[in-house]
Amino acid sequence: MFSARLNERSARLATSVCLGIDPRPDANAYTHPARHRHDARAVAQSVADYFTAILENSHDLIACCKPQSAFFEALGVPGLEALQRVMARARELGVPVVLDAKRGDIGSTAEAYADAYLSDGPLAADALTVNPFLGLDTLEPFLERAVAFDRGLFVLVRTSNPGSADLQGLPVPSAAATATAQVPLFQRLAAALAERAAGLPADEHGYGPLGAVVGASHSQEAASLRELLPHSIFLVPGYGAQGGSASSVAPAFDGQGLGAVVSASRSLTYDPALREVDDLTELAHAVRRRVEAMRADLQRVAPTASAYGR
Amino acid sequence: MFSARLNERSARLATSVCLGIDPRPDANAYTHPARHRHDARAVAQSVADYFTAILENSHDLIACCKPQSAFFEALGVPGLEALQRVMARARELGVPVVLDAKRGDIGSTAEAYADAYLSDGPLAADALTVNPFLGLDTLEPFLERAVAFDRGLFVLVRTSNPGSADLQGLPVPSAAATATAQVPLFQRLAAALAERAAGLPADEHGYGPLGAVVGASHSQEAASLRELLPHSIFLVPGYGAQGGSASSVAPAFDGQGLGAVVSASRSLTYDPALREVDDLTELAHAVRRRVEAMRADLQRVAPTASAYGR
Repeated sequence: MFSARLNERSARLATSVCLGIDPRPDANAYTHPARHRHDARAVAQSVADYFTAILENSHDLIACCKPQSAFFEALGVPGLEALQRVMARARELGVPVVLDAKRGDIGSTAEAYADAYLSDGPLAADALTVNPFLGLDTLEPFLERAVAFDRGLFVLVRTSNPGSADLQGLPVPSAAATATAQVPLFQRLAAALAERAAGLPADEHGYGPLGAVVGASHSQEAASLRELLPHSIFLVPGYGAQGGSASSVAPAFDGQGLGAVVSASRSLTYDPALREVDDLTELAHAVRRRVEAMRADLQRVAPTASAYGR
Repeated sequence: MFSARLNERSARLATSVCLGIDPRPDANAYTHPARHRHDARAVAQSVADYFTAILENSHDLIACCKPQSAFFEALGVPGLEALQRVMARARELGVPVVLDAKRGDIGSTAEAYADAYLSDGPLAADALTVNPFLGLDTLEPFLERAVAFDRGLFVLVRTSNPGSADLQGLPVPSAAATATAQVPLFQRLAAALAERAAGLPADEHGYGPLGAVVGASHSQEAASLRELLPHSIFLVPGYGAQGGSASSVAPAFDGQGLGAVVSASRSLTYDPALREVDDLTELAHAVRRRVEAMRADLQRVAPTASAYGR
């Protein structure tokens, strides 16, 4: 089961790092050299080479990787080919791939997205991020594929951006309690997800295929969500460049220091300090040092990880 | 301006039809012949041939077309190449392309999606559907590209599926009125979008780049949303296979019978009655007859379209 594979890998390698793979425009002199400025195919090629090298150099330090589909899509068809290559290399190295594509649609269209990313096609990942705005019925095709193909999804519950309050933070009636009790929308959503997750297959620690995205900027909320969602692994963005610290992500972990992975991208792979470097070996080593530091930082708040499942 | 181009085309051709381009799996004997069962490249090729032929045969009857990205993504890289080919042909024929990809993400990731689909790259469309769940700040990169590149976006406000009530229908405090007034979430969202739209460039009829998706299954709501969102063109899905009729979509139009396009896909291009047909010419003619019928059906509820702008 995806949840068990992720937690067991996390415990075995004593890491909660989710390596964000975000090939941002003009991010460094290796992936985006000036001579490739108008050549998406050349950029896509060096992006694939870059992240392949990073995975090869740092795979033993990461729980999973998370390619951000948007940056690959921005490179067009060559970008999708690069994404496919990076995902294939991760698979060969045994690194679970969480594709961050935030898909969501209704009925047969949701089925098509689930077929694309959670079945066994060339763009299939181990897990996919999913947007629940269209309704809980729209999650079903994703859950069905996740169960059938042993994959996972991470439903957006509380994102790390300032504007996440606009809709996710609105007060709504609590579904469970009396009509007058109000909760933030994300909490009501989480309660509904918890109910759905309880009806899905689970691993021996209670985790199943229905995970949740809970941003690092909402530390106190993460603690109550952790209680509310015992069957859900949390994907926690917002560490590093977005300002989240190890202590702010601590509440996302369970009592065994598991049940969560923390993603960072810019601060690991596109540190501004490395912007002018164009040597792949030097870059891959520099990224490894940053991944090591993040892993150690997270170990301080989730120290029992290495004892899990032994 | 995108809104003016869409309304003027709609008026000139007396049509509100948005042709949905949804290459569903196993949909007919031309696009999905048995011999191509395990060959995504061959399917993608015939899908591109099919929808190109349909556009060539019916472009004079449609206000715009709406490729559904999910079905192309499900075909992998060859699917994206097919999407690119179909969009290029639509552009040559002067048919505005609304790419239905329901993208949404934060900060620089939203910028990447906007760069991919609303700037001038190979996958750029005239307009894009966007999911607002992450917050209003996440719409800004899309709006910025839309204004800069003369494109539009359609923000999901009220979708046509039964589960749309789960989040979009939740009672929340009205932003404008007293603290005790409650409105459905989609209405509060619409009010916020209306405010934002008022600050954007508008054409001579008041429409601008910030459109809205309002499903055909919510006829009464469409009437109040039409009043609330004077600057937004509506994209109305749910006609045809999903059960919406011309009278149910009528409230989406303005007093001149414009300001809205109504999409249908299955009922036009993949009618089950045509499932066994594998002749491209016969199919393209059959689709044209269905588009003609839908156009006439919509003219009954939006009859003044042909007088607009003259």
